[in-house]
Amino acid sequence: MSLWVWKFGGSSVAGPDRIRHVARRVAEARKEGHDLVVVVSAMGDTTDDLIDLARQLHPEPPARELDALLATGEQASAALLAMALDALGVPARSFTGWQAGIQTEGAHGNARVRAIAAERLREALEAGFVPVVAGFQGLNAEGHVTTLGRGGSDTTAVALAAALEAERCEIFSDVEGVFTADPRVVPDARLLPVISYDEMMELARLGAQVLHHRAVTCAQRHGIVIHARSTFSDHPGTRVVPAGTVEPDRPVSGVTSDRHVARLALVSVPNVPGIAHRVFSALAEAGINVDMISQSVARNGHQDIAFTIADGHLPVARRVLEPLVRELPAQRLVVDDGIAKVSAVGAGMATQPGVAATMFGALAGAGINIEMISTSEISISCLVAREQVDEAVRAVHAAFDLGR
Amino acid sequence: MSLWVWKFGGSSVAGPDRIRHVARRVAEARKEGHDLVVVVSAMGDTTDDLIDLARQLHPEPPARELDALLATGEQASAALLAMALDALGVPARSFTGWQAGIQTEGAHGNARVRAIAAERLREALEAGFVPVVAGFQGLNAEGHVTTLGRGGSDTTAVALAAALEAERCEIFSDVEGVFTADPRVVPDARLLPVISYDEMMELARLGAQVLHHRAVTCAQRHGIVIHARSTFSDHPGTRVVPAGTVEPDRPVSGVTSDRHVARLALVSVPNVPGIAHRVFSALAEAGINVDMISQSVARNGHQDIAFTIADGHLPVARRVLEPLVRELPAQRLVVDDGIAKVSAVGAGMATQPGVAATMFGALAGAGINIEMISTSEISISCLVAREQVDEAVRAVHAAFDLGR
Repeated sequence: MSLWVWKFGGSSVAGPDRIRHVARRVAEARKEGHDLVVVVSAMGDTTDDLIDLARQLHPEPPARELDALLATGEQASAALLAMALDALGVPARSFTGWQAGIQTEGAHGNARVRAIAAERLREALEAGFVPVVAGFQGLNAEGHVTTLGRGGSDTTAVALAAALEAERCEIFSDVEGVFTADPRVVPDARLLPVISYDEMMELARLGAQVLHHRAVTCAQRHGIVIHARSTFSDHPGTRVVPAGTVEPDRPVSGVTSDRHVARLALVSVPNVPGIAHRVFSALAEAGINVDMISQSVARNGHQDIAFTIADGHLPVARRVLEPLVRELPAQRLVVDDGIAKVSAVGAGMATQPGVAATMFGALAGAGINIEMISTSEISISCLVAREQVDEAVRAVHAAFDLGR
Repeated sequence: MSLWVWKFGGSSVAGPDRIRHVARRVAEARKEGHDLVVVVSAMGDTTDDLIDLARQLHPEPPARELDALLATGEQASAALLAMALDALGVPARSFTGWQAGIQTEGAHGNARVRAIAAERLREALEAGFVPVVAGFQGLNAEGHVTTLGRGGSDTTAVALAAALEAERCEIFSDVEGVFTADPRVVPDARLLPVISYDEMMELARLGAQVLHHRAVTCAQRHGIVIHARSTFSDHPGTRVVPAGTVEPDRPVSGVTSDRHVARLALVSVPNVPGIAHRVFSALAEAGINVDMISQSVARNGHQDIAFTIADGHLPVARRVLEPLVRELPAQRLVVDDGIAKVSAVGAGMATQPGVAATMFGALAGAGINIEMISTSEISISCLVAREQVDEAVRAVHAAFDLGR
């Protein structure tokens, strides 16, 4: 009998009717003879509501306690889906992360799956139950409940699929799969039937919401094919597969954007060794990831260092950098939080010249100024004014002829 | 340093403001030099809301899954109180039931505390944390989350006080302690500064809400003195103590009532051996506790068997008894769910004659008919019409001169 791991996102279990709908899908798959392990997120806005409650009690809620609080959301939806399955005559059992044997390591709120001791799930499967696992969580070596951060339930599903050697890993959400761009922004965006791990990771890292890059990394490491599908349709969705199995037929596979970007610039710092190290190690110590970096050509022994971070880190970044302005010294710190990033991603761009030129031309043609540029093997990103970013996505999408 | 266990009920943690209030009380006690372990219930109506949600998905939610669902309520409030304490500069850590080492046995939804492996709590105390423990829950030997049933958080607190050899066990709620009757029903009800375990258990069993009889049983077994107090005042409340330490100065200590009663009668069953056994063992197998029982004197080889159960068990009881009506046979099954029970409780009644006569006289004087009577060493209960039960409580309270 084939084993499938299915994961349902928060909007798929946002209320009793939707939970029942998910239960019916699971019951049908069982009827077709498949064994299933189901991973669920917290219902609808539960996680945001719990975070709100926490913030009312503490300006910066202790990470261990925030994890203990948030983990209850997925536990509740797992129990509720197990009940809905039982009501359809499908024997089911809910599992918290620790009951499912999910062992984590790393920081609270952003832990990694270290290992999965899947005996209890296997026993439940053998006894004929559908295990319903609370996503997004596990237990660390000290016995504390930890959450896996954004996209954590996707990662739970992929890690379980690997541990249980599942035949399929399907991630259900309220979108039909991975598109060439966000269909809400680009009306003629096209569903990609297949995409490589590398491209999917890059799209996710650069702003696409449909799958989280950590889940894709985990899938790639274990050779798990992910199907990204819609809870509310039977469309086959997008398969995320090893690069070798999909031939890039075009330089760019998708265009994405990220509005949660802030740019900081340290203006006129001395051009002496060790300056960049001091700046970026101070940010790293504060737990802030830096994305794009540019350093101006030195003039009169001074230069500018500019970089981007997630805009949620802005308050902490200011606290870290303001003393450095005096110490380095820099003339001043300039912060711009009115920007966004547009990115084109494609495994084919490495072998096809002119991709950057096409992208810059598309933006210029739409009258959009480029504030900063960064590139990787399979992506090009441009920083633009935030109010122009949707326009930028449309222009780049059209320039690479990605529409249906 | 003295160790106190404090327990706060659902209304005491019903929102951010109340959680902050509880945190301030805990912070003050810490400042006075006491170590504390705090047990919390789920916030406000959370448990009822979760039960509603479960019932929308399943007419009779599987007990294991209902436990998994309900346990999240206390886990969330424990994490939130830990955050509120941290915000006041009091280091705190939340613990789920299983993290606190609470091992259970028995049925889901109504488990008992089998043992407490309190090492993690002791370590947290030694490290200077206030452990905040999710009440009402533990883990059974199979690794399933189980809840302790009604009053479960009180039991958690008492069991922890015993395991940690705490100096005090204080149960905080929205009432100031144990009264001679419910002050909402009897305006001149008096707060009892002290009451014996036996009387408290009997009051709780017969309907008083302030402490659950299982918590009191647990306290008696371990010799733990419980203080029942109000979260919202500094009143010392009621101490629940061994019988030997409190001399009964009056025959009756308190009057209570229970509206959640239904009476069933099997009319005209054959007066042959084994009939009562068949009826009550069938109910016991269905998990239904029978409270009062009366059997009429036999006439023409037939008699009536009447008894009371909790009204929530009525649907199941009907299912169990209807086939018996045909098998025994009985003439018919009569169900009365318009009744309630009024009870007078007092350790002194065993040694003082005339208590029953006083109670029956009080009811008669108020024009209230007695439908059924049962007695124990320290209580007398009468079944009356539900719409007259408040009046009955006032009449009995006055007859024993329990007012201030």
